[in-house]
Amino acid sequence: MNGKEIERHLFIVFGATGDLMHRKLLPALYTLMTSGPLEGKSVILGVARGDEMNDEKFRAMAHKTLVDAGLLDDTGASAWCEKCIHYQPVDHGDAQDYTELKGRIEQIEHEHDIPGNRAFYMALPPQVFQPTVERLGEAGLNKSAGWTRIVVEKPFGRDLKSAQELNALLHRFYKEKQIFRIDHYLGKETTQNILFFRFANLLFEPLWNRDRIKSVQITVGEELGVESRAGYYEHAGALRDMIQNHLTQLMTLTAMEPPVAFDADAIRDEKVKVLRAVAPISPDDVVFGQYAAGQIDGETVPPYRKEHDVAPDSKTETFVALCLHVNNWRWQGVPFYLRTGKRLKRRMSQIVVDFHRPPITLFDSFEDFDDTINSNTLVMTIQPDEGFDLYFEVKSPGQPVKVKTKHFSFRYEHAFGKLAEAYQTLLLDVLQGDQTLFVRADEVETSWGIYTPIVENPPEPFLYSSGGWGPKEADRLVEVTGEEWIMT
Amino acid sequence: MNGKEIERHLFIVFGATGDLMHRKLLPALYTLMTSGPLEGKSVILGVARGDEMNDEKFRAMAHKTLVDAGLLDDTGASAWCEKCIHYQPVDHGDAQDYTELKGRIEQIEHEHDIPGNRAFYMALPPQVFQPTVERLGEAGLNKSAGWTRIVVEKPFGRDLKSAQELNALLHRFYKEKQIFRIDHYLGKETTQNILFFRFANLLFEPLWNRDRIKSVQITVGEELGVESRAGYYEHAGALRDMIQNHLTQLMTLTAMEPPVAFDADAIRDEKVKVLRAVAPISPDDVVFGQYAAGQIDGETVPPYRKEHDVAPDSKTETFVALCLHVNNWRWQGVPFYLRTGKRLKRRMSQIVVDFHRPPITLFDSFEDFDDTINSNTLVMTIQPDEGFDLYFEVKSPGQPVKVKTKHFSFRYEHAFGKLAEAYQTLLLDVLQGDQTLFVRADEVETSWGIYTPIVENPPEPFLYSSGGWGPKEADRLVEVTGEEWIMT
Repeated sequence: MNGKEIERHLFIVFGATGDLMHRKLLPALYTLMTSGPLEGKSVILGVARGDEMNDEKFRAMAHKTLVDAGLLDDTGASAWCEKCIHYQPVDHGDAQDYTELKGRIEQIEHEHDIPGNRAFYMALPPQVFQPTVERLGEAGLNKSAGWTRIVVEKPFGRDLKSAQELNALLHRFYKEKQIFRIDHYLGKETTQNILFFRFANLLFEPLWNRDRIKSVQITVGEELGVESRAGYYEHAGALRDMIQNHLTQLMTLTAMEPPVAFDADAIRDEKVKVLRAVAPISPDDVVFGQYAAGQIDGETVPPYRKEHDVAPDSKTETFVALCLHVNNWRWQGVPFYLRTGKRLKRRMSQIVVDFHRPPITLFDSFEDFDDTINSNTLVMTIQPDEGFDLYFEVKSPGQPVKVKTKHFSFRYEHAFGKLAEAYQTLLLDVLQGDQTLFVRADEVETSWGIYTPIVENPPEPFLYSSGGWGPKEADRLVEVTGEEWIMT
Repeated sequence: MNGKEIERHLFIVFGATGDLMHRKLLPALYTLMTSGPLEGKSVILGVARGDEMNDEKFRAMAHKTLVDAGLLDDTGASAWCEKCIHYQPVDHGDAQDYTELKGRIEQIEHEHDIPGNRAFYMALPPQVFQPTVERLGEAGLNKSAGWTRIVVEKPFGRDLKSAQELNALLHRFYKEKQIFRIDHYLGKETTQNILFFRFANLLFEPLWNRDRIKSVQITVGEELGVESRAGYYEHAGALRDMIQNHLTQLMTLTAMEPPVAFDADAIRDEKVKVLRAVAPISPDDVVFGQYAAGQIDGETVPPYRKEHDVAPDSKTETFVALCLHVNNWRWQGVPFYLRTGKRLKRRMSQIVVDFHRPPITLFDSFEDFDDTINSNTLVMTIQPDEGFDLYFEVKSPGQPVKVKTKHFSFRYEHAFGKLAEAYQTLLLDVLQGDQTLFVRADEVETSWGIYTPIVENPPEPFLYSSGGWGPKEADRLVEVTGEEWIMT
């Protein structure tokens, strides 16, 4: 988002035949390269295992992807694919492969007059990540005549120790400012806007503390089950897959102090400070769940344990609700509830800031006044239908005096038209060298520090019916502070 | 609004053949009596000079009023008028008339089984107000077996001394709790809701002070000119007609401290405290204007001085802008700008709360960031299209980083359907004996205390073109504090 001019570069995707490339990266790159700020500045090199693939086949595959995505019609863009997309196999993953890769990169750069700027995008499964980074480094591909940047997808480790090892590995070959750890939640406009909302307005900051806020609730609900991801998910679970990264990121943006400046390190300094203030999580403050059978949109869905590739006695959690206590001056005593799950009632990501009730109810003087004054809430919706809603109390017209809850509503797409995909935003930032929306080494480690005791001693998951909002134990978690889960 | 049961009563209107009766009171009473809380509980007695009028003619007149107002069709409601409406002349305004009036009241009460509850509504021009009150009192009509209440329309005096005299006159015959001084702005839902908005929500009260608010602007704009009211208006002017009552009421509701309870005296105590904190107005803080010719909705309109019954060299102000300084703990240093005028660009009544800008602009770190961060504003619209709008800053999607002003919007009619007329609300309150929305003796006197130095030494009015927003001197008034008039 720093607005810097983008220099000509080569965009190298590892795992180029995989799902992420075709679902997210290629459509985002195509859009940016044909009618956006990457026009005439970017060339793509796909890298993968598999020497049955070649330039021609890869271009055909890319072409089909773009047609399927509705970005071009059947006849268009062959020429574009021809010009902008290349493929290089690293079939055996040995030094020879990487020497050839280096040669190919230099050749493409020469052909396209690219001054050695390289973005390596690692769309790889965890087990091949380490050898790939080592081979790249050993082949000298960790630096170049221009800039070299490496983009790392989740998962970034599976506990504190493995995250530290990954960081050590990366730092062996790269400086921190070359490393872009992706959390695609940070690319969403509503997420970015949390900071603008807080710091471009005078309205909210005076309210943004323990004196005014009763609790913060962050929910990321999915309708989908584990789908085809059980191979990974069985060994990860919702805490690693969602809480440690996405929900924790949303939490830090909500809780952080005003940064000294709006730049990557100033903002990440403040995020790390929030994470460092989080108290060790008590086992009482964590609820795990696993989906049983149920109904979603009128269709019966199977339990997690009967999904493909899932163990029939799996203990993997598909739902987590937990409470974080941020023990700093601003937030002491304000619970931050984080909740996520698969096979919930609907897909939604929301941050709900629940304010205290007014200190007194003045309206008891009215005869028959039996209305409860509800607390004000600010709901930041990250998906779907991104926007903000502010719930407040208003007198309903006429007699008898009644107070009703109504809300102000703001929707991005209504105000600004269709929003860009998070990946477009993030890829652009990589190419501008802006790390604001990427996770720093200490940030990811501090986050893992919070959750590692739980992943090492996971609670037993409670079964919950698909199509609901998780196990009732998650409701009890918030009831302790007199709250309930707030959703809109 | 106190929700109390309404007892059977007689509703006596002085000035029953006049404009207010037919434009406002009768439609409001009819609605409340046929399908509202007055059903079967109210009987109307019209009183006026003129013995050419009688029950039959008055009922026909009322019938026509209700047909014209679209409340009943040509054939309906004759029976209703027959049963519920009566007329009594007070032709000479002497003791004999009032003895007869008393007899007639007792006779109607007897016929309708009304236990002596009486509301006297004084829809009278100022010059006949005093003798009418005296005759009523002398005839013993200031009390009854049930309750007796007197409703007083504006204008309530024309300066401090005359207001004190009016209060002394009323208090000679009535206790303060019998007296209902009407300010119809207080009957509007949005006006009532200022207090609910402030005190049923936690969101606003922490922001509602000199630390967060830069200025408060209250505008009541009219498109209309003086119309047929020049006879009165030439000797009144905008300060007396609008500022001393309506705009000052809006100011006190915006500025007041939380009351001890939501009852009439607790609220009015706080309103009086605000008025007492208003500093004497400096001549530099007042701008008078008078409309010249101009265009309204594409039509040429004449200058004030050429209106019917207006002196060709009239100095009467049709526009006032002024600044009040409320010197209390909460508001010291926050200007309250009040502005009203005839023949302005459009009809609107708004309270604009303009917050300070954020203390720093974090976004300067972006290259090419040249956006100004606007202050947040809360706009309470009293007419037309009653509601609230909250303006805030938001990041516009994508690059370069830009901050745009957008707003949350809440509209009563969208949320609750069509709102009742202010007079319905106020008449109901009179009959429930609820004085919350009526102006207390000390309130009206303290308000006159603020403005009497100006009416005694009025500034020369600046001419302004009809169809604009008044003289440019009014803009200079707010520019002193770096503000401009905010309108939506």
